[in-house]
Amino acid sequence: MPNKKHVPRHIVLTSHPSQFGPKPILIAWGAAAPGDRGPIIATLTNPTHRNVIGTHSGSYAVYRALAVARGVLQSDYRADLTDTSPVEQIGPHPSWADPEKIVSLDPFGAMVGEAFTTYCEQGYDIRPTIAITKAHINMPELQDAVAAGRLRIDGEILKPRGDLVVTKAAIDPVWYLPGIAKRFGITEADLRRALFEQTGGMFPELVTRSDLEVFLPPIGGITVYIIGDVAAIADPHKPLAVRVHDECNGSDVFGSDICTCRPYLVHGIEVCVQTAQEGGAGVIVYCRKEGRALGEVTKFLVYNARKRQSGGDRADAYFARTECVAGVQDMRFQELMPDVLHWLGVTRIDRMVSMSNLKYDAVTQSGIEIVERVPIPEELIPQDARVEIEAKKAAGYYTNGEVADTVTLSEIKGRSLD
Amino acid sequence: MPNKKHVPRHIVLTSHPSQFGPKPILIAWGAAAPGDRGPIIATLTNPTHRNVIGTHSGSYAVYRALAVARGVLQSDYRADLTDTSPVEQIGPHPSWADPEKIVSLDPFGAMVGEAFTTYCEQGYDIRPTIAITKAHINMPELQDAVAAGRLRIDGEILKPRGDLVVTKAAIDPVWYLPGIAKRFGITEADLRRALFEQTGGMFPELVTRSDLEVFLPPIGGITVYIIGDVAAIADPHKPLAVRVHDECNGSDVFGSDICTCRPYLVHGIEVCVQTAQEGGAGVIVYCRKEGRALGEVTKFLVYNARKRQSGGDRADAYFARTECVAGVQDMRFQELMPDVLHWLGVTRIDRMVSMSNLKYDAVTQSGIEIVERVPIPEELIPQDARVEIEAKKAAGYYTNGEVADTVTLSEIKGRSLD
Repeated sequence: MPNKKHVPRHIVLTSHPSQFGPKPILIAWGAAAPGDRGPIIATLTNPTHRNVIGTHSGSYAVYRALAVARGVLQSDYRADLTDTSPVEQIGPHPSWADPEKIVSLDPFGAMVGEAFTTYCEQGYDIRPTIAITKAHINMPELQDAVAAGRLRIDGEILKPRGDLVVTKAAIDPVWYLPGIAKRFGITEADLRRALFEQTGGMFPELVTRSDLEVFLPPIGGITVYIIGDVAAIADPHKPLAVRVHDECNGSDVFGSDICTCRPYLVHGIEVCVQTAQEGGAGVIVYCRKEGRALGEVTKFLVYNARKRQSGGDRADAYFARTECVAGVQDMRFQELMPDVLHWLGVTRIDRMVSMSNLKYDAVTQSGIEIVERVPIPEELIPQDARVEIEAKKAAGYYTNGEVADTVTLSEIKGRSLD
Repeated sequence: MPNKKHVPRHIVLTSHPSQFGPKPILIAWGAAAPGDRGPIIATLTNPTHRNVIGTHSGSYAVYRALAVARGVLQSDYRADLTDTSPVEQIGPHPSWADPEKIVSLDPFGAMVGEAFTTYCEQGYDIRPTIAITKAHINMPELQDAVAAGRLRIDGEILKPRGDLVVTKAAIDPVWYLPGIAKRFGITEADLRRALFEQTGGMFPELVTRSDLEVFLPPIGGITVYIIGDVAAIADPHKPLAVRVHDECNGSDVFGSDICTCRPYLVHGIEVCVQTAQEGGAGVIVYCRKEGRALGEVTKFLVYNARKRQSGGDRADAYFARTECVAGVQDMRFQELMPDVLHWLGVTRIDRMVSMSNLKYDAVTQSGIEIVERVPIPEELIPQDARVEIEAKKAAGYYTNGEVADTVTLSEIKGRSLD
């Protein structure tokens, strides 16, 4: 492995707008044609070409830095993108040409090869921030659904032995700072300053480079699973089912019974398969926002506090314990979530597999119609997750059933730690 | 929700050792007594108290910053840690007092309340970087294992209906930079400079504050699932099974058939349950290193390149495609992985459920004995994952079976994209 390094002597602590000779290529966020919009150049192979703050791969940039430090990766290594282009075309959609509809991802992120050919030929190192591939997935619960007659093998979408054919996309975050500030109703200066100071001083360019309006934050991204015909997603004559699922490793992978995450995800996939088999499409949006974007350490601290509090783990104190530890009940900022739906060209969701009022409000306020809301079937709720689901319903989550009153809430209890 | 802000006018772009009046509290990494070692102070409630670079919660610090920007979280909010302390005591172990055994997490991170009481009383805001709780998990495959007679319900570890009782810990990364540099055989200055420059300029304090030796990087952490008696982990008279599993969302959650990740994880849990039922313990270490720490966008690009290359997806070109796109085959740096085992007090692993030579070498070179290596059973390998497993065996992964020669490797093919 190569051990050669290209480390200049002088360390630049932060850059300023006037520092470099040539001005960076302008990004006209929301321009309809990619040539007018301009490419996102976040690689480190040629610092003078960069027109954004931050770099690629979200938080995995730290591992890339380790690889360079270790001498196993040359700092100017340029990706060979042969054969990597999307297996299905997504967009462009009218929403791509609206600078306010999409502010947290680059709609052209999957098609950099075709959209920015001229720049690539000029030597600019433009990397995709979105990758689209195909896969076969197989979850034991889907096989059970087939056995129970809820799902039917059709040989194309759902194959024998329960193999489910999907198109999937991985999306790295690309934040247009003026748009994010506007979405949140704050000034761009306040946003930039908080992002810098409240991370312990990450990226001084947030405050020194007001001319750079795009930021690639070192956070997890999104994975989209599409079931059925990709073209049906944006077709108003075809039905569409959607579940937006925020990561919960403990349940999604390990099946922890304190919440409804994996059962609800699986139910979402079932509804997606049924909708795809009706000639429509189903979309699962998986967001890397572990523990309501508070992280797993905070989540486990909250679990302990819930189980140990006076009176035990109970629905009437469900949100209070999170707020004590984290200072807020939730940090997911669902206002940014609809961006991925607009990237897909969604204008109407026939079946929204979610009870969250925060998600519902965010999606509908972004201009997408929701026809039907699909709650988790009662029989899929683990006993210990009653605390969560009843607390959420009482706090405004959608239900077609009853909402518990204060007395009942205080009586809905989870397992103790012993 | 509070909307009050405490934003001073002057922006400090980076700090320097002489900048603050009082020197930060010394961290004597590897000191046996927590009082001698000193606390990790990474909160932003009082900047003059900080004695590290970066802040808490890994990459979720960015969401915390959004919450402050949005005005829903006060920047000086201090966590109420009532009832959050660990449900099981882990350590201290002799390895905690060796500054070279553990360099990427804080061994005292779970016990900050008891270990640093004096500092807390003096008003220092010391937050845990590790949280330990209990859970019941339930995976459909474990129920199948019970039905097939491979696992037995004992009523304590494995309960009726397949509920598995676990102790689990979430761990945020805490990097001791001199120790990481030494582990990699590079200078601390080179490490700091690459971490700063090769992330696009993240944390200038990496180069301006050589007096701060501890860094909390904005990356994903580790979750540890312990099955059986926690005390058995460090007891040389009790058997121990371990699987160190690197995240693969596509398989771990969705059951993608292109790799062996979820089946191998489930097999690891089976071996852990059996070992715990023999009076020992089982440990699953789940590391947030998606796509070999290259991230999912890169992973999907590689999938496309593999499936489309001349001759199709085949075992003899398995590693080459990753290297073309990423510049390296792997960025997981298993050299840091054994730290979590030393935190747990592991000195011998009776059953290591892994075929990876990189993991094996890292664990054994760190001074932990591995008695038996457990490969994934043949019948658990999905057809499309043959490409991966045969390529890995040919590259040095452990197997008790045959290793394919070059001609055979070129004939082991995966599904095409169509």
